[in-house]
Amino acid sequence: MDGRIVREVGEFGLIGLLQGALPDHLRSSGSVPLGIGDDAAAWKPSPGTTSVITTDTLVEGNHFRLDWSDWRSVGFKMLAVNVSDIAGMGATPVLATISLTLTGDELVDDLVEMYRGMADVASPHGIVIAGGDIVRTEGPVVLGVTVIGEGRRLLQRDGARPGDRIVVSGTLGASAAGLALLSDHALRQKATTADLLVAAQLRPNPRVALGKVLAAHGATAAMDLSDGLLGDLPKILAASDVAARVDVRAVPVSPAVRALFPERWLDMALRGGEDYELLATVPAGALPAIIEAARDVGATLTDIGEILPLTSDRPALVMIDTDGSEQAVDVGAFDHFV
Amino acid sequence: MDGRIVREVGEFGLIGLLQGALPDHLRSSGSVPLGIGDDAAAWKPSPGTTSVITTDTLVEGNHFRLDWSDWRSVGFKMLAVNVSDIAGMGATPVLATISLTLTGDELVDDLVEMYRGMADVASPHGIVIAGGDIVRTEGPVVLGVTVIGEGRRLLQRDGARPGDRIVVSGTLGASAAGLALLSDHALRQKATTADLLVAAQLRPNPRVALGKVLAAHGATAAMDLSDGLLGDLPKILAASDVAARVDVRAVPVSPAVRALFPERWLDMALRGGEDYELLATVPAGALPAIIEAARDVGATLTDIGEILPLTSDRPALVMIDTDGSEQAVDVGAFDHFV
Repeated sequence: MDGRIVREVGEFGLIGLLQGALPDHLRSSGSVPLGIGDDAAAWKPSPGTTSVITTDTLVEGNHFRLDWSDWRSVGFKMLAVNVSDIAGMGATPVLATISLTLTGDELVDDLVEMYRGMADVASPHGIVIAGGDIVRTEGPVVLGVTVIGEGRRLLQRDGARPGDRIVVSGTLGASAAGLALLSDHALRQKATTADLLVAAQLRPNPRVALGKVLAAHGATAAMDLSDGLLGDLPKILAASDVAARVDVRAVPVSPAVRALFPERWLDMALRGGEDYELLATVPAGALPAIIEAARDVGATLTDIGEILPLTSDRPALVMIDTDGSEQAVDVGAFDHFV
Repeated sequence: MDGRIVREVGEFGLIGLLQGALPDHLRSSGSVPLGIGDDAAAWKPSPGTTSVITTDTLVEGNHFRLDWSDWRSVGFKMLAVNVSDIAGMGATPVLATISLTLTGDELVDDLVEMYRGMADVASPHGIVIAGGDIVRTEGPVVLGVTVIGEGRRLLQRDGARPGDRIVVSGTLGASAAGLALLSDHALRQKATTADLLVAAQLRPNPRVALGKVLAAHGATAAMDLSDGLLGDLPKILAASDVAARVDVRAVPVSPAVRALFPERWLDMALRGGEDYELLATVPAGALPAIIEAARDVGATLTDIGEILPLTSDRPALVMIDTDGSEQAVDVGAFDHFV
């Protein structure tokens, strides 16, 4: 325990303390020889690979709430959601840079905990935390994460073809259920499954191994689910110029979510968001082999529908509802400003 | 002219408008085939190169003031200072990602102007603006830039050796003089050179071609000058475990800066910062050839001192002052918090 605030240790003192929170193998490695401390960090791309980059910004109060989370979980999630984007490309994460916009009143111990949370995600993948930037603000804390990865065959959003099956990994809705539990103390106390659901919200596990399996076994498109199935699937449909029919009765939802939220579980699964599972399209013939290969890396894939040609006489996304009726889905993703 | 604010066009509307502000060749290219719009952007590293990454965050009020600057210059500088870090590695900038943390009350036209300022820097180098992130804040606007580059022989800070000559490019102090003019309306009106000095502050030119010349011609260490000569040289000395003697009489300062600030010009040149010139160490024998090669890319290099062995009986940085006397320099870089 340090006990001091950022203003007391200064920018360079803080950099040293945060570096110290990372085990050696997350500060540099064979492929990332130059980490924190020069004009730039450097890494050696593997021959024959394509590099990928993704970036995300989190604003205190909007993207994370310290009354609902803890600093270690904030660090975990900020890195995990970016690694999830790399997984959605079928690529391997290699390094990350971190940008901290701080008031100076933060406890150094809290920021060290945040770095430990990042290390929790980085360690199993050997992701080097290669540097970043620390600046001062008068406003809310802003956290920026950029992750670099590399892959051979990338899974873009524009490759879905009519006849492909639509698959999702794991179960959907657990993260939204966890969020609901964070704001409902009474229900949380009552539910024996609460901790698991809250963990799905605070510490999502990026599906890196599964992304590589999908890329290796011929998936035609993939992305990670951050805005909910009905927010994200339309992005694949638009990029690929195709339509889709999804059977909501097939969408995998955990019994815990169904039991705790009998009125809302389906909405949580379809629109809740932040599940960070993978959504992919797969040629029908490749489906059995890909489900098998996913199982080998500990992931389940569920067939929830099919890709159709885009025609003018049918909506782009049709849903088979719980009563078996077909209905058009009003698509649209979360907008930060409207 | 659009006339609307961000809140009125929404996140996705804004992304479209900002993309539209970039010419086609800055939205994707042969080596950066996948730009804005997927889970991640993708690029093909050139075989045999090492990749580098640098990131910077700017907070409104602290790092840029809209009463002193304009949005196009803000866009120019935010990309230029990151490209300058890539130049300081002797590498070539390839792509950038941009993170915008906005209140929603910004004029769309202003942000489009900011993107045009980025395009002003990106165009001559063919840097693709490959994507990023837009989120909402209640506090000051925060701008984040990450630039990826690649190079064969990188110029780190840890390669300076006793006997090397110390060189800087261009002249120092013009940016600090420009900043002083921005806060002194009367002096600015009077000075015929004011626009040039203000431009040095608002639109610094990153020395990319020179960085590559230094790397190709055997410079042993290099970095870009953002914290002033006396703030940055100690970083090379510390990383390389060496000492230095600098002759301040040799430090290149433009006549305009000397004339306008007769009391402060030397301090501006040594400590002013934000010049974004390159500071390098060069084996003495290689100096003539490297000065010649720099001239071929339109850059001047000036020999300002020498690298010495680090010994316990002498300070790490000694300065030969204007009166010819030697004195120890109290080193230390700008800290955002103390």
